[in-house]
Amino acid sequence: MSQLDKVQKWVSEQKLDVAYISNFESIKYLTGFGSDPIERVLALFVFPDHEPFLFAPALEVEAIKDTGWDHPVYGYLDHEKPFKLIANYIRERNSNPIHWGIENDNLTVDRYEQLRSEFPNANFEKNLTPVFENLRMIKTADEIEKLNAAGAEADFAFEVGFNAVAAGKTEAEVAAELEYALKKRGVMEMSFDTLIQAGAHAAEPHGATAMNKIKGNELILFDLGTVHDGYISDASRTVALGTLNDKQKDIYKVCLEAQLAAQDYAKPGITAASLDRVARDIIDKAGYGEYFIHRLGHGMGMGEHEFPSIMEGNELVLQEGMCFSIEPGIYIPDVAGVRIEDCVHITSDGCEPFTHTSKELKYL
Amino acid sequence: MSQLDKVQKWVSEQKLDVAYISNFESIKYLTGFGSDPIERVLALFVFPDHEPFLFAPALEVEAIKDTGWDHPVYGYLDHEKPFKLIANYIRERNSNPIHWGIENDNLTVDRYEQLRSEFPNANFEKNLTPVFENLRMIKTADEIEKLNAAGAEADFAFEVGFNAVAAGKTEAEVAAELEYALKKRGVMEMSFDTLIQAGAHAAEPHGATAMNKIKGNELILFDLGTVHDGYISDASRTVALGTLNDKQKDIYKVCLEAQLAAQDYAKPGITAASLDRVARDIIDKAGYGEYFIHRLGHGMGMGEHEFPSIMEGNELVLQEGMCFSIEPGIYIPDVAGVRIEDCVHITSDGCEPFTHTSKELKYL
Repeated sequence: MSQLDKVQKWVSEQKLDVAYISNFESIKYLTGFGSDPIERVLALFVFPDHEPFLFAPALEVEAIKDTGWDHPVYGYLDHEKPFKLIANYIRERNSNPIHWGIENDNLTVDRYEQLRSEFPNANFEKNLTPVFENLRMIKTADEIEKLNAAGAEADFAFEVGFNAVAAGKTEAEVAAELEYALKKRGVMEMSFDTLIQAGAHAAEPHGATAMNKIKGNELILFDLGTVHDGYISDASRTVALGTLNDKQKDIYKVCLEAQLAAQDYAKPGITAASLDRVARDIIDKAGYGEYFIHRLGHGMGMGEHEFPSIMEGNELVLQEGMCFSIEPGIYIPDVAGVRIEDCVHITSDGCEPFTHTSKELKYL
Repeated sequence: MSQLDKVQKWVSEQKLDVAYISNFESIKYLTGFGSDPIERVLALFVFPDHEPFLFAPALEVEAIKDTGWDHPVYGYLDHEKPFKLIANYIRERNSNPIHWGIENDNLTVDRYEQLRSEFPNANFEKNLTPVFENLRMIKTADEIEKLNAAGAEADFAFEVGFNAVAAGKTEAEVAAELEYALKKRGVMEMSFDTLIQAGAHAAEPHGATAMNKIKGNELILFDLGTVHDGYISDASRTVALGTLNDKQKDIYKVCLEAQLAAQDYAKPGITAASLDRVARDIIDKAGYGEYFIHRLGHGMGMGEHEFPSIMEGNELVLQEGMCFSIEPGIYIPDVAGVRIEDCVHITSDGCEPFTHTSKELKYL
């Protein structure tokens, strides 16, 4: 049974008249067609007893057919009113749909109100967001294979990137060389902007690669990933250029210990919160707790922000097939930043990483 | 008066108790701090008679202070409930805010409902989306200067890209060389994935650069842009490699005629729809109307999807300071695709493009 068939079955079981799927990632998951429509409307409608249909900007219709979508797809032009058209296509199937499912975490208030004015009797009673989160959370063998392939690309990127590092070069030059090598190899898309931060610059965990020059005698943080057949890699390594002082060495050692301990502990049956705790305890005890200012990890697959979230308060029990990052970080303002990250999938009795670049402190 | 002061004044005039600004681009426009929080919460609250405050993921707080934000900023950790915290910070300023403004086109149903449950007496009566659209639509001289600088980078990118084209190379290799040259120069960020499509591949107007090999005797479409100090460039050129057949030459000629006619016609006082019509009429008359399947242009500035939208049905009157693309395209499936695009700003009596790469058909 395809994932789309599963959703249709669920719509029927829940006695919904229609499910409106608005998140382009959900649509990609169900149809194979994935494109961020930005401010335009891309929508999938699923019914209990009619074929589903896609509604899309006209300029996407050919690409949708090319992916093998064999149900109806309706295009609209920029000057047309999409929700008027959508309402007509829905009424052709059900003249008065009452019970609706929508993605509450994706649909905007504006579109919600447009729908409500087209269907004043509608009851938007089911939030589809958790349904998709749960469906996507357990990866199939085929998905794991793609994630492994993306991971191998990230390993290659680290190799190129480490070789490109030299004192006097900018972070940007290293990123440029790394991405050039990937593109020459046919790896077309990074899963996010490659992050390379040297020295104290790495203490801004959400900063960006810059014209900051690599000086030497410092730690250099790499965070990168690629997209392989719609699935991503995401990994971080922190390496040394020149000699390190005791503080730099210590935060690396503590961060590595936390990362390895968590990766060793990850298995079916434990909670996400307990996994976060394993890493956080090590960093807390070493006195760096205040500098570890984000969750241990995030789910990943088609995107880098899926479920499960590995954080305090999340009592979700890990199961085989879940995929997420394990990425403790220690960021000391004006000193240095360290993050070490593998994404893993939960196996029957532990976890396996998608990336295999050594995590021992590497001196370039 | 700063843009933030203007918004505060407007909030006061509208007799709102609080305005909740959720779109990170609006926040960037008002505060200088711009970072897509993805699934996390980044929010700006503006009051008629209190200081505004920012609410952000903890890991962004330092970066926010670094931008010079001198009002309160509150961080939250991943395991905390952001809307509980937000409600408390709001109640410290106004214990029972009734009249709210929200960005209807950005706020999700889920967050809207969380707010409603925190503030059951609230009336979400003002949609802030058009307020920001209008505020951002007229660019200042300072913004135009940044857009010109971004345009110069795009012109450089075309030069590098055209030099990189050769039969036997993939589209991806050309994109890799072009982006490498930009990054070496310190241009860190593209405004979107560089698009290079050769031959019939260019007939997919929203396709992607691929491992498709350049063969020769074909048209090659470039669509690219950079980000300069938070402002983007966006331009397209279509060039020839080898010799072209009559069909290829004809669609180029018609597309160029449409682009030049529209750019010549653009000035204060005309409507967006009439500008679209000028280009569309030329393409229609040449018999290619069915292959021009998108609007003539989109507003741009900090992003590539601002206002005004240059399309049928938009009776908005153009004014000095508006910035948008003029990008007719003709895409004939299995044959070829042509798009020619400059972004321009409306001046007192016409328009000026941000990019200056020649639009005459170039044979590489």
